[in-house]
Amino acid sequence: MVFHVEYPRIVPARKPPGHQPAAPRYTLRWHDPVDTLVSEYYGMQKVNPSWDEQQQFFQRVEASLAHPDGPAAHEIMRFTDEAGETNAVVVAYWLDATRHARWSAAADFPTWFAARERLSGDAGYWRETIAVPYDRHETIYSAPHYKIGFARTANSSIESMTTNGYFGAARDRIPVSAIDPLESPLRDAPPKPRSVEGRGRRLRVVTPLNMTALRSGQFWVGAGPEQLGDYHENLQPKLMRGMNFLLDHKGETGTLALRVMTNLDADGTERAETSVLAYFLSLAQLEDWSKSHETHLDIYRHAIAMNRQFKEKREVVTWHELFVMPEATSFEYVNCHGRTGVLPYFDLLEPATA
Amino acid sequence: MVFHVEYPRIVPARKPPGHQPAAPRYTLRWHDPVDTLVSEYYGMQKVNPSWDEQQQFFQRVEASLAHPDGPAAHEIMRFTDEAGETNAVVVAYWLDATRHARWSAAADFPTWFAARERLSGDAGYWRETIAVPYDRHETIYSAPHYKIGFARTANSSIESMTTNGYFGAARDRIPVSAIDPLESPLRDAPPKPRSVEGRGRRLRVVTPLNMTALRSGQFWVGAGPEQLGDYHENLQPKLMRGMNFLLDHKGETGTLALRVMTNLDADGTERAETSVLAYFLSLAQLEDWSKSHETHLDIYRHAIAMNRQFKEKREVVTWHELFVMPEATSFEYVNCHGRTGVLPYFDLLEPATA
Repeated sequence: MVFHVEYPRIVPARKPPGHQPAAPRYTLRWHDPVDTLVSEYYGMQKVNPSWDEQQQFFQRVEASLAHPDGPAAHEIMRFTDEAGETNAVVVAYWLDATRHARWSAAADFPTWFAARERLSGDAGYWRETIAVPYDRHETIYSAPHYKIGFARTANSSIESMTTNGYFGAARDRIPVSAIDPLESPLRDAPPKPRSVEGRGRRLRVVTPLNMTALRSGQFWVGAGPEQLGDYHENLQPKLMRGMNFLLDHKGETGTLALRVMTNLDADGTERAETSVLAYFLSLAQLEDWSKSHETHLDIYRHAIAMNRQFKEKREVVTWHELFVMPEATSFEYVNCHGRTGVLPYFDLLEPATA
Repeated sequence: MVFHVEYPRIVPARKPPGHQPAAPRYTLRWHDPVDTLVSEYYGMQKVNPSWDEQQQFFQRVEASLAHPDGPAAHEIMRFTDEAGETNAVVVAYWLDATRHARWSAAADFPTWFAARERLSGDAGYWRETIAVPYDRHETIYSAPHYKIGFARTANSSIESMTTNGYFGAARDRIPVSAIDPLESPLRDAPPKPRSVEGRGRRLRVVTPLNMTALRSGQFWVGAGPEQLGDYHENLQPKLMRGMNFLLDHKGETGTLALRVMTNLDADGTERAETSVLAYFLSLAQLEDWSKSHETHLDIYRHAIAMNRQFKEKREVVTWHELFVMPEATSFEYVNCHGRTGVLPYFDLLEPATA
């Protein structure tokens, strides 16, 4: 079987009549029903941590993932944040919310993360949990052969599709968009960033309904000289120009946080593989940038041109996975600087004693 | 159209082969797609409040509900809690999570509820928000003519069904139960109640995945002497015996909180209409009580016997609506005593400054 969810449409599709995509694209499907998708990011944040310190963090998390209720897949990554601190990141993927919750209640790493000792010292720790019903996600891959992100979970396959190549296609791929415009309740009163004292504190953020999480990836391991050259000279600079535009225009684009992460090998070597983890106040704002801003059009046109030029010989894979979240309090920042993640934007909660 | 969600089953149905229900039963359907169901309870808690005080609370909430993003239906009720305090309660129903979130961000009552002034004085205030994807709910009604609870929302109808009259029918009616056993992640380590200092504090409770909320109702307005007599002499005592059993055996039944609420007319008069709002750690524990304990079998058998005796002349309507919740932090208690709602059981959070 190929599992998927469809609703009788009451919100019109964006797909133009008779549309034929300019380039083939693929999407993820599972061969068993999936109720909830959980992707969880754990970070250690520090000024210039040694590889030993990073490795210790990775090993601590990874040891804990080897648990009967552990995730179906995980990766390790690194990025430098807007305050200049290094963040060592593990992302873990579950297809079962009960197993995720049991792991969170019982495994070593969550216990370590919850301990009082994390409130002091020169490292911060954070957790961003993105848990959405299946009908609130969509994925796209430029090629079917490279499995990354949720595509590494068992019983999945990357399938050909035609819901791509027009503006609004990402929305059309989200099953619930057929019955819900997925508007932000804060559309008319977007939050302004404010200064937050995050050091020495454990803070949870109340993230609003329909906040949109996007992990958008690039993979060029093994690319030959021609396509490698094009990646470095063209696609990567265009991508970075687009990401910097979003970072420089957070308010008007609804960008809340954006990190360009690099995947790591087990020894800490950076792979020829990156992904951008970004949060937007709403899908509509992400769409506005995608469809109208030259920085995105540049990325988009170049990717299509390369696809047409190299066809199945294309050695660079681009992909993304997108989640439109329910209201949540699942982003937690411990002893982090005040500009970490979505800390600057929303109401904060902290643990209370009985 | 009649909207509903169905999944390809991987968890076996409980329905026995060839099952024919002993009595007709009905369930709620909408004629437009529904994404999320939100029921929200607001309470004012006080020792012996005057009707004026209760009325002031009801009027404050109700004035605020008359808002473009206000709920699709609401009711007013009253109950005495386990500490002997009176609780004036409004329940409000939304079929649109974005409208609910906009209302929560902008309307007068949520602003008043969030104000610092609520932390002092001799009344407590609480809010319990139950927001679930459509596929995590089920309903049952003993008759199709009386609309209550979610059935008062527009574009809905109470439809005949046959998924009833066997143990496990409630589970079978929850669409997602076809693909998810809906286990509590805390099944092997159920929380023990502890003493909480709730006065002068604003506390949010981290309620666990698959906590189950049940509103179970009884309506006997207009019943003639024969059925009224039976209600008072038989069904009501059996019901109260069952509820008291659950209250007296919380740990072993997974009961976290249980309130027997009476619906009120606008002038505060108690109607011949009650409902029990209860939270259980898991659906499985509620099922265990239902299928095996004499207190529930007594209620169940009597209801079926009366249905058979009076058929369409049955003047007492029983019904329930049930929700299996995602992990949430949407239960908030302000200046309440420590035994209010689910306060004694789970991790607590309180608002933090930036």
